Amino acid sequence: MTQRYERVALIGLGLIASSMFWSMKRGGVVGHVAGHARSAETRETAVRIGLCDTVHATAAEAVAEADLIVLATPIGVMGDVARDIAPHLKPGATVIDVGSVKRTVIETVGPHIPEDVHFVPCHPMAGTEHSGPESGFASLFDNRWCLIVPQDGTDAAVIARLEAFWQALGANTEIMETDHHDLVCAVVSHVPHLIAYTMVGVADDLRRVSDQEVIKFSAAGFRDFTRIAASDPTMWRDVFLTNKDATIEVLGRFTEELLALQRAVRTGDGEQLHAYFTRTRAIRRGILEAGQDTNEPDFGRAKVNR
Amino acid sequence: MTQRYERVALIGLGLIASSMFWSMKRGGVVGHVAGHARSAETRETAVRIGLCDTVHATAAEAVAEADLIVLATPIGVMGDVARDIAPHLKPGATVIDVGSVKRTVIETVGPHIPEDVHFVPCHPMAGTEHSGPESGFASLFDNRWCLIVPQDGTDAAVIARLEAFWQALGANTEIMETDHHDLVCAVVSHVPHLIAYTMVGVADDLRRVSDQEVIKFSAAGFRDFTRIAASDPTMWRDVFLTNKDATIEVLGRFTEELLALQRAVRTGDGEQLHAYFTRTRAIRRGILEAGQDTNEPDFGRAKVNR
Repeated sequence: MTQRYERVALIGLGLIASSMFWSMKRGGVVGHVAGHARSAETRETAVRIGLCDTVHATAAEAVAEADLIVLATPIGVMGDVARDIAPHLKPGATVIDVGSVKRTVIETVGPHIPEDVHFVPCHPMAGTEHSGPESGFASLFDNRWCLIVPQDGTDAAVIARLEAFWQALGANTEIMETDHHDLVCAVVSHVPHLIAYTMVGVADDLRRVSDQEVIKFSAAGFRDFTRIAASDPTMWRDVFLTNKDATIEVLGRFTEELLALQRAVRTGDGEQLHAYFTRTRAIRRGILEAGQDTNEPDFGRAKVNR
Repeated sequence: MTQRYERVALIGLGLIASSMFWSMKRGGVVGHVAGHARSAETRETAVRIGLCDTVHATAAEAVAEADLIVLATPIGVMGDVARDIAPHLKPGATVIDVGSVKRTVIETVGPHIPEDVHFVPCHPMAGTEHSGPESGFASLFDNRWCLIVPQDGTDAAVIARLEAFWQALGANTEIMETDHHDLVCAVVSHVPHLIAYTMVGVADDLRRVSDQEVIKFSAAGFRDFTRIAASDPTMWRDVFLTNKDATIEVLGRFTEELLALQRAVRTGDGEQLHAYFTRTRAIRRGILEAGQDTNEPDFGRAKVNR
């Protein structure tokens, strides 16, 4: 039986941190949870809704005596946070981040972490389109994957303890190499988000089709894009600024492929289109078989009646 | 009170036609419903599940004596179907199609329709990723829009009767001009589908990321694309072959915009990215306010546990 973390500090209280809190409490996974958010408004909300056992005005205060410290801020400020908390970390503690990009986080956070503290980058691949301290819920990580990206020389026992932690939150865990992580995420997450943002932006911008028309008739396919295009702008800005190379590589492949299909549309190559549209069904089937989506028509969306 | 249709013929028994049948029966909207599908297997399934009051081996048989004839085949064969049924249509009957493109349907179906029969193109903007005779359900059209694209000289009473019919199926109705319809649909439906197919195809094709990885980690955004990319390949092939101009126009705008965002990623223009990602949230809000999607996190998807 691996040892649990007695005291956990959550730095940043958005969707991921608040979901971690409710999930830790659901499972009785940890002892005390100390929280910190930079914004006073977020801290007040946290106190009001009972998010964290104690809420602290500074990150330094929150991390004191913590066995596990979770960096859950936008990626762009993680380096600064690490610098601020470094002098206050307990020897033997483990610092993790939950950012969507790993190479940059390792480069900006890593150098600040003291020798006697473990730093293990993590990426729980779960989320919703909502953000902020009130958006979290206990089941967010259930049957989702948490990628763990340990650096050279990290103690195996530290990693095992962390895997047990994420599993207690409902997640599956997998160890992955840094750059491969960033490429995989560009494919399954970053580029899909950028494309969704683009499609929504184009629809909003077309002069000959009104926003009202786009909104009314969105159920014909468009609205599936709007969910992820409603995600937190600051988080996503930071993702693209920090996972530049992999994003641009996958975007390049995407554009190439889109132009090939556009050419098939222009030349009327029905065979190519039909073959392409048939091939993509297999991936959907795989996702359903892996329990990563529901097969209910329309995602089992509740019908909304005005 | 507008007059109901006593006898309806459904030609083609896929998602839309089968949903129309269950919806007509739910509302007691019509009298007898005769159905026809080209494939014997589909006709057998229809008989087995009670889809249609009578199932006919030929379209000519199905349309005999019908007051309303619904062309619900892929767009590519509608012209042939219209030619085949034309001699069997009852004077004064109304023929509608439910295709996603209107200009082409008007050009291929219109010329076959006899002088004493009304032809009113319709487009119920509703669907799911599933297809075939067993995929239909009565509530598919509830609070969705059905666009009606009447041609010059169509009797107002014919249109009013048709609007009442769609409303009895749960839909809202709107009259729209042909080419505007095809452009609006390129924006809210056709290009989003093509982009989703492309993204899924790229993910499937990247040598350095395995299909298993794409599938396991799809909840990070990618899986939202896979739903519409699992739609019927034949239907979508025909959509792109027949709505070529509008598709290519909107794709051109999309590519332009995507390249601008790619440039912002490459140059590290965080302000531009943040502003773009903020703007797109407003459209999502509009869709929720219009009752066209649910605000439940993750579309309220049921969590799937293996």
